[in-house]
Amino acid sequence: DFAHIDHHRSLRKGFPEVIFGEGKSAAQIVGIMERMQLQEQVLLVTRVDAVKAAAVLERFAEARYDTEARMIVWQRAPLPKTGLGTILVVSAGTSDIPVAREACLTADAMGNVVKSVFDVGVAGIHRLMAHRSLLEEARVLIVVAGMEGALPSVVAGMVSRPVIAVPTSVGYGVNLGGLTALFGMLTSCSSNVAVVNIDNGFGAGYMAASINQP
Amino acid sequence: DFAHIDHHRSLRKGFPEVIFGEGKSAAQIVGIMERMQLQEQVLLVTRVDAVKAAAVLERFAEARYDTEARMIVWQRAPLPKTGLGTILVVSAGTSDIPVAREACLTADAMGNVVKSVFDVGVAGIHRLMAHRSLLEEARVLIVVAGMEGALPSVVAGMVSRPVIAVPTSVGYGVNLGGLTALFGMLTSCSSNVAVVNIDNGFGAGYMAASINQP
Amino acid sequence: DFAHIDHHRSLRKGFPEVIFGEGKSAAQIVGIMERMQLQEQVLLVTRVDAVKAAAVLERFAEARYDTEARMIVWQRAPLPKTGLGTILVVSAGTSDIPVAREACLTADAMGNVVKSVFDVGVAGIHRLMAHRSLLEEARVLIVVAGMEGALPSVVAGMVSRPVIAVPTSVGYGVNLGGLTALFGMLTSCSSNVAVVNIDNGFGAGYMAASINQP
Amino acid sequence: DFAHIDHHRSLRKGFPEVIFGEGKSAAQIVGIMERMQLQEQVLLVTRVDAVKAAAVLERFAEARYDTEARMIVWQRAPLPKTGLGTILVVSAGTSDIPVAREACLTADAMGNVVKSVFDVGVAGIHRLMAHRSLLEEARVLIVVAGMEGALPSVVAGMVSRPVIAVPTSVGYGVNLGGLTALFGMLTSCSSNVAVVNIDNGFGAGYMAASINQP
Amino acid sequence: DFAHIDHHRSLRKGFPEVIFGEGKSAAQIVGIMERMQLQEQVLLVTRVDAVKAAAVLERFAEARYDTEARMIVWQRAPLPKTGLGTILVVSAGTSDIPVAREACLTADAMGNVVKSVFDVGVAGIHRLMAHRSLLEEARVLIVVAGMEGALPSVVAGMVSRPVIAVPTSVGYGVNLGGLTALFGMLTSCSSNVAVVNIDNGFGAGYMAASINQP
Amino acid sequence: DFAHIDHHRSLRKGFPEVIFGEGKSAAQIVGIMERMQLQEQVLLVTRVDAVKAAAVLERFAEARYDTEARMIVWQRAPLPKTGLGTILVVSAGTSDIPVAREACLTADAMGNVVKSVFDVGVAGIHRLMAHRSLLEEARVLIVVAGMEGALPSVVAGMVSRPVIAVPTSVGYGVNLGGLTALFGMLTSCSSNVAVVNIDNGFGAGYMAASINQP
Amino acid sequence: DFAHIDHHRSLRKGFPEVIFGEGKSAAQIVGIMERMQLQEQVLLVTRVDAVKAAAVLERFAEARYDTEARMIVWQRAPLPKTGLGTILVVSAGTSDIPVAREACLTADAMGNVVKSVFDVGVAGIHRLMAHRSLLEEARVLIVVAGMEGALPSVVAGMVSRPVIAVPTSVGYGVNLGGLTALFGMLTSCSSNVAVVNIDNGFGAGYMAASINQP
Amino acid sequence: DFAHIDHHRSLRKGFPEVIFGEGKSAAQIVGIMERMQLQEQVLLVTRVDAVKAAAVLERFAEARYDTEARMIVWQRAPLPKTGLGTILVVSAGTSDIPVAREACLTADAMGNVVKSVFDVGVAGIHRLMAHRSLLEEARVLIVVAGMEGALPSVVAGMVSRPVIAVPTSVGYGVNLGGLTALFGMLTSCSSNVAVVNIDNGFGAGYMAASINQP
Ligand SMILES: Nc1ncnc2c1ncn2[C@@H]1O[C@H](COP(=O)(O)O)[C@@H](O)[C@H]1O
Ligand SMILES: Nc1ncnc2c1ncn2[C@@H]1O[C@H](COP(=O)(O)O)[C@@H](O)[C@H]1O
Ligand SMILES: Nc1ncnc2c1ncn2[C@@H]1O[C@H](COP(=O)(O)O)[C@@H](O)[C@H]1O
Ligand SMILES: Nc1ncnc2c1ncn2[C@@H]1O[C@H](COP(=O)(O)O)[C@@H](O)[C@H]1O
Ligand SMILES: [Mg+2]
Ligand SMILES: [Mg+2]
Ligand SMILES: [Mg+2]
Ligand SMILES: [Mg+2]
Ligand SMILES: [Mg+2]
Ligand SMILES: [Mg+2]
Ligand SMILES: [Mg+2]
Ligand SMILES: [Mg+2]
Repeated sequence: DFAHIDHHRSLRKGFPEVIFGEGKSAAQIVGIMERMQLQEQVLLVTRVDAVKAAAVLERFAEARYDTEARMIVWQRAPLPKTGLGTILVVSAGTSDIPVAREACLTADAMGNVVKSVFDVGVAGIHRLMAHRSLLEEARVLIVVAGMEGALPSVVAGMVSRPVIAVPTSVGYGVNLGGLTALFGMLTSCSSNVAVVNIDNGFGAGYMAASINQP
Repeated sequence: DFAHIDHHRSLRKGFPEVIFGEGKSAAQIVGIMERMQLQEQVLLVTRVDAVKAAAVLERFAEARYDTEARMIVWQRAPLPKTGLGTILVVSAGTSDIPVAREACLTADAMGNVVKSVFDVGVAGIHRLMAHRSLLEEARVLIVVAGMEGALPSVVAGMVSRPVIAVPTSVGYGVNLGGLTALFGMLTSCSSNVAVVNIDNGFGAGYMAASINQP
Repeated sequence: DFAHIDHHRSLRKGFPEVIFGEGKSAAQIVGIMERMQLQEQVLLVTRVDAVKAAAVLERFAEARYDTEARMIVWQRAPLPKTGLGTILVVSAGTSDIPVAREACLTADAMGNVVKSVFDVGVAGIHRLMAHRSLLEEARVLIVVAGMEGALPSVVAGMVSRPVIAVPTSVGYGVNLGGLTALFGMLTSCSSNVAVVNIDNGFGAGYMAASINQP
Repeated sequence: DFAHIDHHRSLRKGFPEVIFGEGKSAAQIVGIMERMQLQEQVLLVTRVDAVKAAAVLERFAEARYDTEARMIVWQRAPLPKTGLGTILVVSAGTSDIPVAREACLTADAMGNVVKSVFDVGVAGIHRLMAHRSLLEEARVLIVVAGMEGALPSVVAGMVSRPVIAVPTSVGYGVNLGGLTALFGMLTSCSSNVAVVNIDNGFGAGYMAASINQP
Repeated sequence: DFAHIDHHRSLRKGFPEVIFGEGKSAAQIVGIMERMQLQEQVLLVTRVDAVKAAAVLERFAEARYDTEARMIVWQRAPLPKTGLGTILVVSAGTSDIPVAREACLTADAMGNVVKSVFDVGVAGIHRLMAHRSLLEEARVLIVVAGMEGALPSVVAGMVSRPVIAVPTSVGYGVNLGGLTALFGMLTSCSSNVAVVNIDNGFGAGYMAASINQP
Repeated sequence: DFAHIDHHRSLRKGFPEVIFGEGKSAAQIVGIMERMQLQEQVLLVTRVDAVKAAAVLERFAEARYDTEARMIVWQRAPLPKTGLGTILVVSAGTSDIPVAREACLTADAMGNVVKSVFDVGVAGIHRLMAHRSLLEEARVLIVVAGMEGALPSVVAGMVSRPVIAVPTSVGYGVNLGGLTALFGMLTSCSSNVAVVNIDNGFGAGYMAASINQP
Repeated sequence: DFAHIDHHRSLRKGFPEVIFGEGKSAAQIVGIMERMQLQEQVLLVTRVDAVKAAAVLERFAEARYDTEARMIVWQRAPLPKTGLGTILVVSAGTSDIPVAREACLTADAMGNVVKSVFDVGVAGIHRLMAHRSLLEEARVLIVVAGMEGALPSVVAGMVSRPVIAVPTSVGYGVNLGGLTALFGMLTSCSSNVAVVNIDNGFGAGYMAASINQP
Repeated sequence: DFAHIDHHRSLRKGFPEVIFGEGKSAAQIVGIMERMQLQEQVLLVTRVDAVKAAAVLERFAEARYDTEARMIVWQRAPLPKTGLGTILVVSAGTSDIPVAREACLTADAMGNVVKSVFDVGVAGIHRLMAHRSLLEEARVLIVVAGMEGALPSVVAGMVSRPVIAVPTSVGYGVNLGGLTALFGMLTSCSSNVAVVNIDNGFGAGYMAASINQP
């Protein structure tokens, strides 16, 4: 059998397994969703392209597909907002928005109030300064950036709360598919920063939600 | 002048600048400590070798030097334990203990109750299982591992709370000075994981403390 | 002439040359098979896409093409099962199955009883524990995993028999096309582990068969 | 406590935990040996330099230190030779001998008959041909090579038995500390080859012994 | 103007500039050929795909396009065979033939007698031994190999003449697009070996011709 | 909102934000241009393919699209030529011209007199010598090269003015997508050289313009 | 003879050859200085340790050795200050000061007014803001930073003048000896930035001086 | 036994095995020399430090040690000069001289007339031009360079004879221990170039001698 679903996960971790859509056929995704749906309140599928998503939504008409985040969200009913505070998602450029939205949707589905501010990169630092109170009010921050990935250091230097840094593969040349942003974030001279994999908006949203749990 | 101390930091972030000891002379460290001491309750210096530490402690007799963690801690009085819950530090091997202790001392100095369990790597997975309740009770977990860095995935799969993964440079050959452990942790198939730089026990302790703030 | 077939190989090594399908035309594959068929009982072609396979099967109607493993197997008659014990193939995720099947088919064609268990990755370690007796009964184990590649360490820690670890290119970001899983497996803290190239299910099956020889 | 010994390992795996000497003090090694000695027949310590070894042997006078392999072996009595056949250790150059000996000593301590032939690299291929019958009689082969690491491919092409390839860090320039030999071995055009970490003679000996088990 | 032809090159170096076809349009190639043809006896264009080649041959009907080597050769009349001896081109596998042929065509067009033997890789070393006299008679050898790139070391160990080693990008996983074969050849334990860029059959043929000059 | 335009930039830096076209839709580009046009005299969009450019030019008929440089330039009226001297753009090969032209167009739009000389690489060094006076007259030089990237060292050795070196991704094998040219330029043995990212003609033009400011 | 001095360089480039001290003996350095002194007004030697410097100063008593910058400066008389404006050297941390000083000394010796401000990294961005007018008044800026190397982007976003970015090897883990800072600077989202090699303060000072020439 | 001398080599290849001194003790070197001396006319030992060399010369008083090249040469009598023409060794900088001398000594010992010219790097290209006739008269050229490794391209562009390029590890930062020079040489836009390993002066001398054989 192709899938060994971890049915015990929502008991153990408070949230069911999330289906990694890349490399699975629509039929496999539907098969897994059908089995999980029997016991779960919410299902997420990440990294699904539009064609596969359409096939899945034929079977699950009540699910929603977000084109930018490339995610499917199915919910019996939205989970109550139980997070301790607000989760703020900040992006450095316009091109980083798809990854930022994957983080927003994940944290939202896990029961959090999520706010966002996009395209406030360090080449015009006053744009960030203009949002200072938004930054200071958040309980957890997610900062998404490509190219040299400098934004999380600057943001983390302005707040006391934890910052989850998400490098993106946006850029060219020695951006190296996001490695440069990743390594920059890991060597951040601010200390309230931890990092997830390149383009892993999902993981950032999940980690932020686990931090924001009561 | 060689140092531009960020005197505003404890207001903004709740904790003063921490002094990175590597590449500074004992005289420079003492100079910075003297100026900071005027306004702060606690001072940390990381990555200090024993010789430099001895020179610093001649001037600051009341400071404490931890040989394993290679840290100096100076406190007017210990900060009250204000963290929301317990921070648990887990290490995979005996050789990872110096990094683990740097995390313990940092989180402790920042006002947290810290527990630890060492040498419970995945080659004998039952050793970890024996500590299941300790894992489940922690509010934040720090997991330190070298070699293939598999431990954070397994631990994070057992709990719902956030896990800060710390790769170490322990190993040889394709361990690549810790890059393999780092990349393994970033591609973890558990989602409540975020990662700090290789051997950065300090950053893990700081991030855990910022998560554990009330 | 384009191919210098090693006709002596089945005498020397007990199994004929296996044809590497990538970068060869269907005509070249057919040409080599025709010459080898004169003296061999079994022929394998690896890394063949469906289009090329169809062209080959027009000439060799009695051969079988496996879509998932992308292999062609032609046998005069199945070889007798001469292996000393069972070969068990374990995979960490659903997406690793194609590589795992390539291993299964190779070891099977070389005269071995092959069993398998799929999608038992370390994020829910109890799934693996449920198959403990299957693991303990095998004489050789093949463990296939992508992402951080942690599964072989855990499996090898549970058994005394040799484990062949196969990294896959499943993942993104610092998975680095499978390098991270590969390096993790090579620095495994379990010692009864040896490793083959990324996505090399064929090599793992062949090595396991050579270990399992009477 | 600094060490969490896996006392269950010799039951589970037929051989006790092996102590990784690098980064442990002589006192820590002695402490672990004292506790393990109560229940085990044999103890191995790897990667120990001469100074540390002398300190350990003061407490364990009956243990033996091998200067070339940098290993300590302590045995209540030599284990009986239970292996199915002979294990042959082949090295490409004179400089690879330390790694080759680590493999020999490990396999020997685990109850195997071990033979060896050194300095038969591919620049004078007739030297290898002269040992053809030795190669053909072995049940498991370990081939150790630095530089371009070509020897395992050639040896594995001559025999039907499994070959464990061990890359060494011997060389300079694009040898890259052994990565070139490692990658060469992983892309070997012979199929009865699996690979261990750079300079990991211990792992090769252990894997060979696990293959050679009855 | 897009091209600054080095009209002086055939005087200085005995052979005209060779046109690098990649990234040039058919029109650009034709333009350069028209200008060069006024003064040269022979023109080579490398790395041309079939579509571009067809467009070029419409204008230069007397030129010849080799599909495998992806080269265009235009000659007023074949150059006399002035080389000191024979150039032998050896390839390890069938998939390395395109690169090997690029070397053959280049050396041939530069006035050399070229022989070749293909698919004699090290996994069946007797295939190479069978051609020993061919190897010994050549004045310059070109050895083309992918995967682990071991063949040049073995060949160079058998002859006293210079060997030009050409790594190819044939392989997968840690073949790393040919880097592994390249690094293996550069760390060859035979000393009469020098190396050209990955897949650079042209450069190998040119270098061999420059060595074979009277 | 997807874009947070830095409206203050032309005041602060003398030139408005330049739109990075890669990863933006035509609609997004048009949206940003419409808002910026209200206050700016000139707009540049880089890295735009022909399809997207056509869509943008439907709305901005007076803009110009350069196919080779893949740039859109919109100007209310050409800026006056205010630069201190001439900017000279030199390219090593024919294939480097697209990057060189991106530099030319950028520096030109920013108010500079720009000259160029293409295809004067180091394999025929006399071609460069023929342009010696052009080199010596320039106030800033931009040197664009792929492959081994040797040209900037040679040019910078001939002049006293600053040289901006631009590596391109032209080449194959160990060119490594331009990394080799980049690293060669950074280790140049001439000292009046600074470097921009691979294929970043835009950045080189912008930097040259900022140097050439009165 | 070991050195082929480029006596023509001060004519061609306005400044004599600078001696690279690393890997030369004190005797070799003295020998080169003696020959150059006959015709030059100023001599620089970079990367000289204190022991070698002492030996050189025994022969050239009027030269000056800077311990931090590890440079020897010998001048017949200071060159007049001919630069167009001020060169400002900014450093991110205290540990970057040696590299920053090498830049200061070089630009100063070449006839420029040099100012500096140190330890104003991005973790406390207000420290930089406090020096805004200093930044805006400079004609050329040199920004030196290790770790994630974010400072040049922020500085360049605040000014219209050219910024020379200098990555340092300060840091650990994925700092990778300065590669991370280097790559971050090359992918800067500010455009008036060009970069020199890791720790190359000398090159930055030289390039700034060549920009600042009248 | 630690060494398996290839006594057949001087018959097969015209020159005996050369002893790689690194990682061998003086006793091992002496032992090998004693056995080889019985049948050979000349013995070379490479990569020997001064201490080991002294110990070897105590036993072989008639051998000569070259401090710069770190080689031992023992000859019954100098071989006659049988090479077809002159071998010219060119170096880019003063620091590359040790590697260049290793090449000179090797080619000389193998029976060749060797000339050399040092420190003629590309930053002052006229220095090279001054030696044009020397370059044109050589039958084989060896070009040694560190940093960006541009010299072989320029030299090879000036002559029709084969050029052996030798990258050195001289430099810092992105020189990457010589990898940058190596890759630059492999992507040379001149075609009569082949390359040996970083710092491998010995291999370059040997290859040049094998080319220069009658
Ligand atoms: N986009 C994603 N990135 C990383 N991990 C993911 C992603 N989506 C799902 N996962 C994790 O992947 C695992 C499921 O993998 P699979 O069994 O292949 O569906 C679950 O543990 C998820 O938490
Ligand atoms: N030289 C070695 N290379 C790789 N693994 C080793 C080596 N020596 C011991 N080990 C393994 O390391 C583990 C013990 O690690 P530790 O708990 O740090 O002593 C055991 O699982 C051993 O099997
Ligand atoms: N396939 C090839 N690989 C490497 N260099 C080549 C190749 N084909 C032509 N060249 C060289 O590329 C240069 C011409 O480049 P271009 O001016 O871009 O046509 C000449 O110096 C040739 O010797
Ligand atoms: N081709 C390019 N390469 C590097 N940076 C660019 C390029 N084009 C525009 N930029 C910069 O990218 C920034 C705009 O990014 P965005 O907000 O994503 O449009 C501006 O600061 C530009 O100066
Ligand atoms: Mg923007
Ligand atoms: Mg342990
Ligand atoms: Mg699963
Ligand atoms: Mg030998
Ligand atoms: Mg074949
Ligand atoms: Mg050209
Ligand atoms: Mg500071
Ligand atoms: Mg010089």
